[in-house]
Amino acid sequence: MSLPTIRTVGVIGTGVIGASWTALFLAQGLKVIVTDPAPGADGKLREHLRKHWSAIPSAKVTQDEYLNNFKFVKDIDSHLGDIDMIQENGPERLDFKRRLFAHLDANTPEHVLIASSSSGLPSSEFVTECKNNPARILIGHPFNPPHLVPLVEVVPHQATGDAYVTAALEFYRNLGKDPVLVRKETPGFIGNRLQAALCAEAYSLVSRGVVSAEDLDKTVTSGLGLRWALTGPIMTNTLGGGGDFNHFMSHLGPALKTWLDDMHRHEFDMDSQHVDVLKERVNEWTSQVNLKEVEERRDDRLVGLIKSQKDFSEAGISR
Amino acid sequence: MSLPTIRTVGVIGTGVIGASWTALFLAQGLKVIVTDPAPGADGKLREHLRKHWSAIPSAKVTQDEYLNNFKFVKDIDSHLGDIDMIQENGPERLDFKRRLFAHLDANTPEHVLIASSSSGLPSSEFVTECKNNPARILIGHPFNPPHLVPLVEVVPHQATGDAYVTAALEFYRNLGKDPVLVRKETPGFIGNRLQAALCAEAYSLVSRGVVSAEDLDKTVTSGLGLRWALTGPIMTNTLGGGGDFNHFMSHLGPALKTWLDDMHRHEFDMDSQHVDVLKERVNEWTSQVNLKEVEERRDDRLVGLIKSQKDFSEAGISR
Repeated sequence: MSLPTIRTVGVIGTGVIGASWTALFLAQGLKVIVTDPAPGADGKLREHLRKHWSAIPSAKVTQDEYLNNFKFVKDIDSHLGDIDMIQENGPERLDFKRRLFAHLDANTPEHVLIASSSSGLPSSEFVTECKNNPARILIGHPFNPPHLVPLVEVVPHQATGDAYVTAALEFYRNLGKDPVLVRKETPGFIGNRLQAALCAEAYSLVSRGVVSAEDLDKTVTSGLGLRWALTGPIMTNTLGGGGDFNHFMSHLGPALKTWLDDMHRHEFDMDSQHVDVLKERVNEWTSQVNLKEVEERRDDRLVGLIKSQKDFSEAGISR
Repeated sequence: MSLPTIRTVGVIGTGVIGASWTALFLAQGLKVIVTDPAPGADGKLREHLRKHWSAIPSAKVTQDEYLNNFKFVKDIDSHLGDIDMIQENGPERLDFKRRLFAHLDANTPEHVLIASSSSGLPSSEFVTECKNNPARILIGHPFNPPHLVPLVEVVPHQATGDAYVTAALEFYRNLGKDPVLVRKETPGFIGNRLQAALCAEAYSLVSRGVVSAEDLDKTVTSGLGLRWALTGPIMTNTLGGGGDFNHFMSHLGPALKTWLDDMHRHEFDMDSQHVDVLKERVNEWTSQVNLKEVEERRDDRLVGLIKSQKDFSEAGISR
């Protein structure tokens, strides 16, 4: 089965994530039909779009086309026949998503791909009332902000059809994204689990007074994170083993095990009074930082970092 | 107590780490007296220095001065009186380091700071035979390659003097590094523990077939790592909580706990047959990759990334 080319996307929900998706779709030359029940959502979306324009890497249309190639509608139902793909960005509430997906599935032509931006709820839990074609539903979880960060986690549920998985991966790839396929539904998918692993150890070290919150972060921004922007943990290990992961594991596995054993002994308990100590130590630092400035600087540098990565890819060198 | 300004550094051991430290010290205008018992070490060091020159950010001397401002000596003992600080990079073997540090401590003027690049052994374990002044000994653990990556972990042992800790932090800072202070000796210090936390979850996900090794790495390089090059986990959480870490913890703590609980249930066992499955899945990917090319590209991009970070700092914006 080959799915039709995606030219028009339906965007449901225009909070931070939905607005950022819309910006990306428009910049890549797609048409967008967009809806959000919140009062003033239309105006806010236009504001977001104007703000995002300069940051978007490799736009395929003029700014004018970008700002006009969408239609904000009160009720998307009468437009569902004109849409080739839906990106849903509603609230993360199971009852809400169940009702919404049942409605979308019933009213959208059978072969239209429907992706949810859900960062936590697996789609198997909210396709339960879909009677038409739940096989075309999956998760397409972006990382904030979606118009910049290339990562998208594609997470099918057990009954999602292979053709839809392939179509989703191809769709995101054509937008310049780097989709990854999560083959089994897992709480937190991949990215949030890896983040949680790092955070849990960070919380333990800071709450135990081994390192200050500021120095903990510096260990990442001035060291580990610089590497991880370039090679992931598996490739870092492989290169660390002289090009051989097996060699890395025999050579450094025992040390790794010693550290992990000690980390177990000092595992951070999210339910304990250590949370209060952690908060205190973090606030000591962050209360002295101009957070607005940190955020602006991060956004600027993220644009530069992603642009340099794109330039690398476009020079014919894949990541 | 105020320590004398460091103008001449003694470097012991010129493997990859020692040679890279030497390059950095020379580029920053320091004199270096360097020794290594390995046959041909002198020639290899010169080769490393020539190779590193173009990559070093903000050198303070000409290439000619950089290449000539060091003395390679067979026996460093007769030079220990001319040295203001020692950076030791010998093998990670306790018996070896114990003997070496007893010898250095006995033969180096009492107030000379002695730092070890040890990535694993805490200095409390190898200062045991030092009778002169063990208070001037600590760990200055760099991240590879030290002439590029700004992070240095400064780890005193319980009897290291505060003045030496301050001097070490200042010394590395003046070289353009970002030292962090590890306040309690901890296996793996900070960086290797955080790496181990991420790797353990990565190994679990790949060995369980939740995601391919390639996609696991992409989750980091195209998403998490881009953020971590800019803000560490604590600041990322704080900004995620709208500038409030406490808000982040109340709002996202419960989800985090759910993920961590599930991660526990699927914890990777470094002693199990899952290691073989992991190796197989990693090798499936890496055997198809030109690792030499990946490594060269990473090194090039690391230079660019660190240069852009420096430019930012020098524009008066601290990280």
